[in-house]
Amino acid sequence: MLSFANDYINGAHPAVLQHLLETNCEVLPGYGSDPVSARAAEKIRSACACPDADVFFLTGGTQTNQLIISSLLKNWEGVIAAHTGHVSLHEAGAIEYTGHKVIPIPGTDGKLTAADIDRFIETFYADEAHEHMVFPGMVYLSFPTEYGTLYSKAELQAISSVCRTKGLPLFIDGARLGYGLMSPVNDLTLPELASLSDVFYIGGTKVGALCGEAVVFPHNNTPSHFINQMKQHGALLAKGRLLGAQFEALFTDDLYFRISEHAIDMAMKMKRIFTEKDYDFFLDSPTNQQFVILPNEKMEQLREKVDFCFWEKFDENRTVVRFATSWSTSEADLLALKQLL
Amino acid sequence: MLSFANDYINGAHPAVLQHLLETNCEVLPGYGSDPVSARAAEKIRSACACPDADVFFLTGGTQTNQLIISSLLKNWEGVIAAHTGHVSLHEAGAIEYTGHKVIPIPGTDGKLTAADIDRFIETFYADEAHEHMVFPGMVYLSFPTEYGTLYSKAELQAISSVCRTKGLPLFIDGARLGYGLMSPVNDLTLPELASLSDVFYIGGTKVGALCGEAVVFPHNNTPSHFINQMKQHGALLAKGRLLGAQFEALFTDDLYFRISEHAIDMAMKMKRIFTEKDYDFFLDSPTNQQFVILPNEKMEQLREKVDFCFWEKFDENRTVVRFATSWSTSEADLLALKQLL
Amino acid sequence: MLSFANDYINGAHPAVLQHLLETNCEVLPGYGSDPVSARAAEKIRSACACPDADVFFLTGGTQTNQLIISSLLKNWEGVIAAHTGHVSLHEAGAIEYTGHKVIPIPGTDGKLTAADIDRFIETFYADEAHEHMVFPGMVYLSFPTEYGTLYSKAELQAISSVCRTKGLPLFIDGARLGYGLMSPVNDLTLPELASLSDVFYIGGTKVGALCGEAVVFPHNNTPSHFINQMKQHGALLAKGRLLGAQFEALFTDDLYFRISEHAIDMAMKMKRIFTEKDYDFFLDSPTNQQFVILPNEKMEQLREKVDFCFWEKFDENRTVVRFATSWSTSEADLLALKQLL
Amino acid sequence: MLSFANDYINGAHPAVLQHLLETNCEVLPGYGSDPVSARAAEKIRSACACPDADVFFLTGGTQTNQLIISSLLKNWEGVIAAHTGHVSLHEAGAIEYTGHKVIPIPGTDGKLTAADIDRFIETFYADEAHEHMVFPGMVYLSFPTEYGTLYSKAELQAISSVCRTKGLPLFIDGARLGYGLMSPVNDLTLPELASLSDVFYIGGTKVGALCGEAVVFPHNNTPSHFINQMKQHGALLAKGRLLGAQFEALFTDDLYFRISEHAIDMAMKMKRIFTEKDYDFFLDSPTNQQFVILPNEKMEQLREKVDFCFWEKFDENRTVVRFATSWSTSEADLLALKQLL
Repeated sequence: MLSFANDYINGAHPAVLQHLLETNCEVLPGYGSDPVSARAAEKIRSACACPDADVFFLTGGTQTNQLIISSLLKNWEGVIAAHTGHVSLHEAGAIEYTGHKVIPIPGTDGKLTAADIDRFIETFYADEAHEHMVFPGMVYLSFPTEYGTLYSKAELQAISSVCRTKGLPLFIDGARLGYGLMSPVNDLTLPELASLSDVFYIGGTKVGALCGEAVVFPHNNTPSHFINQMKQHGALLAKGRLLGAQFEALFTDDLYFRISEHAIDMAMKMKRIFTEKDYDFFLDSPTNQQFVILPNEKMEQLREKVDFCFWEKFDENRTVVRFATSWSTSEADLLALKQLL
Repeated sequence: MLSFANDYINGAHPAVLQHLLETNCEVLPGYGSDPVSARAAEKIRSACACPDADVFFLTGGTQTNQLIISSLLKNWEGVIAAHTGHVSLHEAGAIEYTGHKVIPIPGTDGKLTAADIDRFIETFYADEAHEHMVFPGMVYLSFPTEYGTLYSKAELQAISSVCRTKGLPLFIDGARLGYGLMSPVNDLTLPELASLSDVFYIGGTKVGALCGEAVVFPHNNTPSHFINQMKQHGALLAKGRLLGAQFEALFTDDLYFRISEHAIDMAMKMKRIFTEKDYDFFLDSPTNQQFVILPNEKMEQLREKVDFCFWEKFDENRTVVRFATSWSTSEADLLALKQLL
Repeated sequence: MLSFANDYINGAHPAVLQHLLETNCEVLPGYGSDPVSARAAEKIRSACACPDADVFFLTGGTQTNQLIISSLLKNWEGVIAAHTGHVSLHEAGAIEYTGHKVIPIPGTDGKLTAADIDRFIETFYADEAHEHMVFPGMVYLSFPTEYGTLYSKAELQAISSVCRTKGLPLFIDGARLGYGLMSPVNDLTLPELASLSDVFYIGGTKVGALCGEAVVFPHNNTPSHFINQMKQHGALLAKGRLLGAQFEALFTDDLYFRISEHAIDMAMKMKRIFTEKDYDFFLDSPTNQQFVILPNEKMEQLREKVDFCFWEKFDENRTVVRFATSWSTSEADLLALKQLL
Repeated sequence: MLSFANDYINGAHPAVLQHLLETNCEVLPGYGSDPVSARAAEKIRSACACPDADVFFLTGGTQTNQLIISSLLKNWEGVIAAHTGHVSLHEAGAIEYTGHKVIPIPGTDGKLTAADIDRFIETFYADEAHEHMVFPGMVYLSFPTEYGTLYSKAELQAISSVCRTKGLPLFIDGARLGYGLMSPVNDLTLPELASLSDVFYIGGTKVGALCGEAVVFPHNNTPSHFINQMKQHGALLAKGRLLGAQFEALFTDDLYFRISEHAIDMAMKMKRIFTEKDYDFFLDSPTNQQFVILPNEKMEQLREKVDFCFWEKFDENRTVVRFATSWSTSEADLLALKQLL
């Protein structure tokens, strides 16, 4: 069945699988200390222009968010996030499970602003009761956001500047990082993003891998005993090569960026199809997730032929749904969609 | 110095201290299993008209909220609370420290409505992504609220009814319970409140005790191994008599209610003083906390002679401050305040 | 370099990788709800002769132990384990991180006895202070143990019987389950093991997969909201197919058992080589891990040519080291080892 | 009924209650920031000869152990304790509840030795698998121990020296500190104990207070945001004066030491009574807890007339029981006991 349900409906990009095959019979040490993972890390350092960065490989986004946040926060601190942030809403309380509050700030289209963060911090310290409150200990944002939107370079610079002034580490969830970097409206490079953040991750699961997220601490700022904390969270794979080999493939010959670019091309074409057919968008997403407002009747009818994702009710008669593209989306898929519309 | 800073500026009501003295040399078993605590529990059961209720004594409000909530919630659940609720904002993340999310719902003047809660639950289960979200596992509200406001009997009945329909235990934080029950606008009795809730506590610290909150599970619904969980939280006093004796005094000859009534009388007189002097109120509180809007200049001037509590900035030139009464507030205090205004 | 360092030095068994390739381009739903995972679960149910069992796929052993234990225990409970158990010593505190004590019982050669467990429980409840202690809430054992040893059917029946009498769920860590089942001394079948336990897992990572452990709740006894708790632990893969496809391959044509049998054959041959060369064993292991006592000088000399694992110091002059076999160990490897000795 | 059940069978020493009365009507700020608490802290600093120490007041022992340990440990660390330590066995898992392992070391008569600790640390770091283990992050001991035994000055110096060499903070649980300091065999002063430890507490609950433990960080080494963490644990009393006033009384005119000395006198006399009557002791305790071996028949017979505490079974026919003295034990009590024996 035709599917735009999400960006993980297929397995891995063939070149990723191929590299798993090629390295399968190498005898390698465990727990991520193998040369395949080391080469992958080196390629990522190079792509980020951060020769001294520490790179770690984890299996999925929630695990990564949980580990990074809990290893950076002190007992008395929480993480600031947009109220629509993945860690705020869609991780089953994974952050709170580690003892820390997600401090929600209302955002717009999934985004926080530097001014929002600054105002929150100022108000917090001005409150005479703040000693009885959760201290803001870091800032979480996602690029692209859960709504497919992006921060411009100027916006991210402003946020980074507030964070540094206030002493708050800035963490960028890059579960779909490639789709942000390759968006036509994006003006940020990976090295710029690395330099403006304190930790981020390069999502593999949603960009062509079977699983895997590459965590980057760009500034010699890895939390103490990070490997121990990975183990404590059950996040340290015995065969770390599974992650290392996939990322080595993704960062060879720009595969990660080519995959992302392809998905963006497909998304922009899909956007034009919906526009031509006079559908309304819930918001203007420049990345691989497109949020379309469908009359409920049309939605039910489409559902018989194509998979997409319920997002939220728009009103009594209309629903917001999400169509996503990925490495495996083809022109034929778009044509089929067009015909269904 | 004259003080209306809060309702815990003094020690205990003299009759409470007197009872500590009277029972001081009785040889008693530890950890709350003593006959003094048993008599106090019996008096509380009687006041609540809940002959089968379980009653436990804890030392303070945050400890009580943390223990009740963490013992009632399952791993995957969070507690619904007004975004201004004490557990949401002013307990330094004590709930999240136990691994659970506080799910904030916007309220009005510190209050939730049955409709708010119902809509939240309906929306939650209608969301196709709810399996990846924190499940609502109970409802927390405070009576009086953090803004001194009260739920009417009809409002509480509606909330209780939604909770029971949805299978969510209803927990009422009664840190200032007496002030709510004795308010001139209140139409709820203690037995009614007990019958409408699944667990609540009768605050002692802010109503005449040195410390102590009496937790009541009215319906044979105490969480399993509650005493063990008290111990695990460091909340089980070796000399449980300290709490039992105080509550025995408070629930003898209606002392708890007389203390509360006195503070309410004082608060209503104070309210009239502010009104006569043409001050504006931030909201209309019918309990022992009064929220007054002071011009900043006036606030600074008053501060030299009288203690009160900063609440929040109202605008550039005015500030909301709180004046609280308690068992120790006297007519002389009010007269002195009047003269300062 | 020749390596017997552990049973995860290579990638996946070729048939496992092949099945990942074959299923790679199927469009599948996420989070383990796909038909590939469903087929794998069905094959596992069949192998366990548990038609009603619930089966879940996780990525690694520590994650699996953490999730199972924390979802089964109540707040006031801990897990009984041998003091040498993996959860006691070698998981960086993953169990305690979830708030639960590992209650260590001294064992022998990695094993607990029914009598040990029974005596512990009897002593616990006879202790008048037990209300201030951590309640035993379940029993953890590993098959094979961390020392490669096995429980006989009679031993496991006795333990299971104590656990059922005392109301304690019995959890069997099967990270190396296949090597236990295929050992020449083993007298337990997989259906028997399933029937005697309350939850266990079939280790994939160490038995031919790239990653993956299959959790089995044989008796309609899955903890409530288990999928939510997987998500909360960061243990729910978006592309659940990665695990499902591997286990489908492992449980097709008895691959799991054939891999295990091969490794056991290799281990028994290796054992004979050491015996012929007059080396002493630390203990008599009937599975794929062999614990050999090496003179320190010999150990250093061997290390230049072959990888093995330091276990512990035996005395001043000798060291216990571990040699492990796996799906990838070959006769040529054994021959090379023999020549080095 | 005559009782030697424990050292918290009575309320407070009369002078402690008296001071609560005297300060009851002072208008004081909340949460421990009051001048009564400040004076108490100053007196404690003086008694410890630590002019720069930070002093905090908490309500009970388990709460204090939980808060100190969880605020000192990093995520990946555990606390070393004797396997008989209070935190190991008798706090219902309060330490593990905060996510940290109690690492048990076998001790003798409740005591650890410097050599035990040193050997444990050396073995830990020599283990090539230690990256997958819980790192030792601090050392916990109790003075007196749970068996009433004491560390000599030389023993504590040796332990302190190992801890400092290895970088492990040394925490001394002083729930019964006074009884240790006033024991005839003790050769440690309070200033010496303060100087050798990194944090300790002066127990009030068991030495004449209604509740309360005074935590002392002697070396400008209070964990960051300690007050926030108190609040987060539900351990910050609104009326902090309750604790401050009691400790002000206890540290005025050496009351704390006089109470302790009295109890020790009573205990030594009691010891002579048992010796004269030819009873055996389980061990030789020099403090206020005496562990006597009673024939079971005698035990049952005594129990009808006097309260004492079951400790453990000695053999089939005999039981170890504990008799404790306190501020309230009188010569008349001893005489009555003598007659019963």
